[in-house]
Parts: sequence; structure tokens; C-alpha cells
Amino acid sequence: MNNNAPIGVFDSGVGGLTVVKEIMKALPNESIVYYGDTARVPYGSKSAETITAYSRQIAKFLMTQEVKAIVVACNTVSALALETIKEEFDVPFIGVVKPGAKMAAQATKNKKIGIIATEGTIQSGIYEKFLKTTSPEVEVFGKACPLFVPLAEEGWLSDDVTKQVAQRYLAELKERKVDALVLGCTHYPLLRGVIGEVMGDGVTLVNPAYETAKELCYVLEDNHLLREANTQPVHKFYVSDGAEKFRRFANSILPCDHLEVEDVAVKSFE
Amino acid sequence: MNNNAPIGVFDSGVGGLTVVKEIMKALPNESIVYYGDTARVPYGSKSAETITAYSRQIAKFLMTQEVKAIVVACNTVSALALETIKEEFDVPFIGVVKPGAKMAAQATKNKKIGIIATEGTIQSGIYEKFLKTTSPEVEVFGKACPLFVPLAEEGWLSDDVTKQVAQRYLAELKERKVDALVLGCTHYPLLRGVIGEVMGDGVTLVNPAYETAKELCYVLEDNHLLREANTQPVHKFYVSDGAEKFRRFANSILPCDHLEVEDVAVKSFE
Repeated sequence: MNNNAPIGVFDSGVGGLTVVKEIMKALPNESIVYYGDTARVPYGSKSAETITAYSRQIAKFLMTQEVKAIVVACNTVSALALETIKEEFDVPFIGVVKPGAKMAAQATKNKKIGIIATEGTIQSGIYEKFLKTTSPEVEVFGKACPLFVPLAEEGWLSDDVTKQVAQRYLAELKERKVDALVLGCTHYPLLRGVIGEVMGDGVTLVNPAYETAKELCYVLEDNHLLREANTQPVHKFYVSDGAEKFRRFANSILPCDHLEVEDVAVKSFE
Repeated sequence: MNNNAPIGVFDSGVGGLTVVKEIMKALPNESIVYYGDTARVPYGSKSAETITAYSRQIAKFLMTQEVKAIVVACNTVSALALETIKEEFDVPFIGVVKPGAKMAAQATKNKKIGIIATEGTIQSGIYEKFLKTTSPEVEVFGKACPLFVPLAEEGWLSDDVTKQVAQRYLAELKERKVDALVLGCTHYPLLRGVIGEVMGDGVTLVNPAYETAKELCYVLEDNHLLREANTQPVHKFYVSDGAEKFRRFANSILPCDHLEVEDVAVKSFE
């Protein structure tokens, strides 16, 4: 394995860029190849079979880019497809669920953890399953928040409507008195302000993007895969639709001046 | 052409069922084959090239079901792909845009028409282009309302949050004093109550689903394609993902007791 190879990162669309941002901060020396499946976004309401098939196509594409590790920057894929596809490839896979769940277990004092995510992630019960294995004493309460992604994409980040929606979605978790809340969808950190305001000061918000970047550092170190080159890292972004729209969004959240974005359909990678 | 053949109807997902409902009312004798592309929904934010490719695959699939006409029950497809794909097949195609636009031109008194739809439909300017040709005296004002579909799917049909979102989206059209408003996305008739309340009594809401069913009657008559059989019509529903979820939604809006729903991937129809 070539240490100077890039890290592959993929998501159903633009949300995974919040993970890329954390990786760039934690590992500024590493090159990244990102794939956003913007032609088939969103994954949140699709079946496990469909999501597994799409993820396999994308992982095969990333392997053609000779990546040394693959980060699944999407909670839905991490919940529904990761365990299946990681067995099919020869590089380490890092999902966002386990790092997020681990941090939540560390952060909670009263052993009550809330999870907010897409319908697919919540129905999978993946966070609960993982936490029950590692921290059987915790209670886990999940809540799907389907309006959060379109509200974030509309840019209504600290809006009164968004606050009312958040109050409604989060009421049950507040009643349950959770003291740690996992932002279990990559778009949700964009609404962090409103979510924090509604939940109150006593609740720790866990951003799996940040925890995933830390986990990636450990995995690369353990596998002796950290980049050694002294040259500038090279980042490449591929999408299945709408390269120009993606570039504008990516430019607004990543600390890079000039992003190389290209359209590539991956459906032939079957 | 066989008069007893079914009518093909397709949409990016479940929204087109509002069109099916109107067709069943207007033409209770006709059989319907529906395709909902639930694995790739939504189309509203995708490019014209991608939407054209997906629509072509679905039309090819419907042709294998020996349909006698195809109804494009999706504003985005009608706006971005219909003119291209209708030339490639030997059956009549009916979109939702022209029937909706025609009715709006008839309904307006002050010659100011509002269009609400997805980003793709609004950016295409399709309603305006069509109206400028047929009714050059009208002024057309478009507004994308990306939160309306998720609000409708969340079931918040007459909710206070939905009303606030509607007030914000529709403020500009009210200022422009439009007196006819086209519900230019198949989900929007589900929010008809709130939209009507915000716009006020003086504004006629145009539902293209209803107008499209009428247009289909004319097209079948003109082409001598009305069904003659005295037997019960047979309806079939195909989706690219999540047949069971689709069945539940369809059962809630269609006047049928038992729906036959099957999963069929159409991506091989290229």
C-alpha cells in the first residue's frame, strides 16, 4: 500500500463535506478523493439493498483512484451497508456511526443518549445496537428529523421556522432528559446553533464528523499509512450530477480556494 | 394499437399518484400501469441530462407493458425531458405542464399568474415559455418552494409551521397580486388548504393533475383509444425501491382496496 495514496471519502451528496472539513483539519497533509452521489441523493429514505448496491459501486470507483482507506461519510450508509461492503475490499473502512457512538457514551453522565438522524438510520437502530454492545448501561432514544436536511439546504440555519421544527422534533428527547445528543446525519452540524439552543446548556452535542476524523488518524497510524510526502496534498471531487452546483456549495464550507470537481457516473461499477 | 391496453403513468416517486387519482375519476374504465422511481427520487434538484436519461429508461419499461399512451405525472420531467423523449416513442405523451398552464391562462382575470414548483421546474422557465407563446399578454411569476415536498411527506398538511413556510414562500407572489396560482409540483395539491388560506379567496389555485386527466380524455378520444372492454380495469404499480412503503402511501390516497405493487429496477433499459 502506498502511503502517499489519497483517502477516499463518499456520501450520498454534499453532506459528507462536513466530514471532509474535519479530515482536512486533523490531517492537513493528506490527499482526498471525494465522491458525492448527487444524482441519487438522498439515501435516507431508501432500502438497505439499494443503498448497499449504490455504495458498492462508489467503493469500486474509489478503488480505481487507488485510495489507501475509505471513509463512509454518511450515517445512512454506515448504518445499513458498511458491514457488508467493508468485507469486499482490501482497504480499511471507517464509518461515522461507531466514532459518534463512542463519543456519546463518553459524554453522557446520566446514561441517557439521544440520536437524531434520517428515517433509515433511526429505523436501523444501528446506534442503539452498537451502544448496547459497548456500553450496556446506557439508554438510547432515537428520533428521525426528515425536515432538517431540506431546512439546512434552504440555508435557514438559525431561522425561527427551523427553531419551531427543532422544538417539535426534540421535545420527546428533552422529556427523556438525554444529556448527550448525536447529530447523526452529516447535514445536522449546520443546524448546531438551533439544536443547541433548543436542547439547552446541559446537553452535549456530538458531531460524528469530528470523531470520525480522529478515528481516521488512529487507523492510518496503526496501519502505517500516514502520508510522508512533503508536497502539497491534492484533493479531487467527483459527483454523479451537477458539478457546478456542488462546487459552489463545497466552496462555501471547505477552506480551499479552488476545487476540482468532475461528473462521473458510477452505475457501471457493478 | 389495442384500445384495451393500459395507460402508462410515471413520476419520480409517489407524487404522481395525485395524477392517477384524477385519471381514475375521469376515466374509471381505463387500466393504469404506474412507475414511481423511488430509488432515485427526488428529480427536482437534478440536471436535465440526468432526468432525461432516467425518464427514457422508464418510458422504455412502460413500453414493455404495451401501454397505449404515457402520462408524465411529474412537473420536473414535463419541464426538462418531455420534449426530447416524446419524439423517441410511438405513443402519445401527455405532460402536466401544458394542461396546467392552459387552465391558468383561462382562470386569470388580471393577467398575472404565479407558478410554484421545484427548483428544476422554476429554473427551466417552462410555464413562462409556454404561456408567452399561447397568451403573450400574461405576466408570469415563479417561485421554488423546496420545503413543500418534505412538509407534505411529513404529513404536516395543515400545520402552523407549514403555514409560516407558505407565508414566506408566497409573500412575493401576493405582492405581485397574481390571481391564479399553478400548483406546479404533484405533491402541492396535498397542501392546497394552507396555500389557499395564505393566498386568499381572490386567487384561483390551479391543480395540473386535474387538468392533465381532462387532457388525457381528449387525447384518447381523438386517437380512438378509449377502452371498450366491459371488464374491470386492472391497475399495476411498479417502483424502483420500497414497494411496501409505496403501497401504504398509495392506499391512503387512491380509492382502491388492494394495490399490486412490485419492485422493478429500470436502469438496464438504456
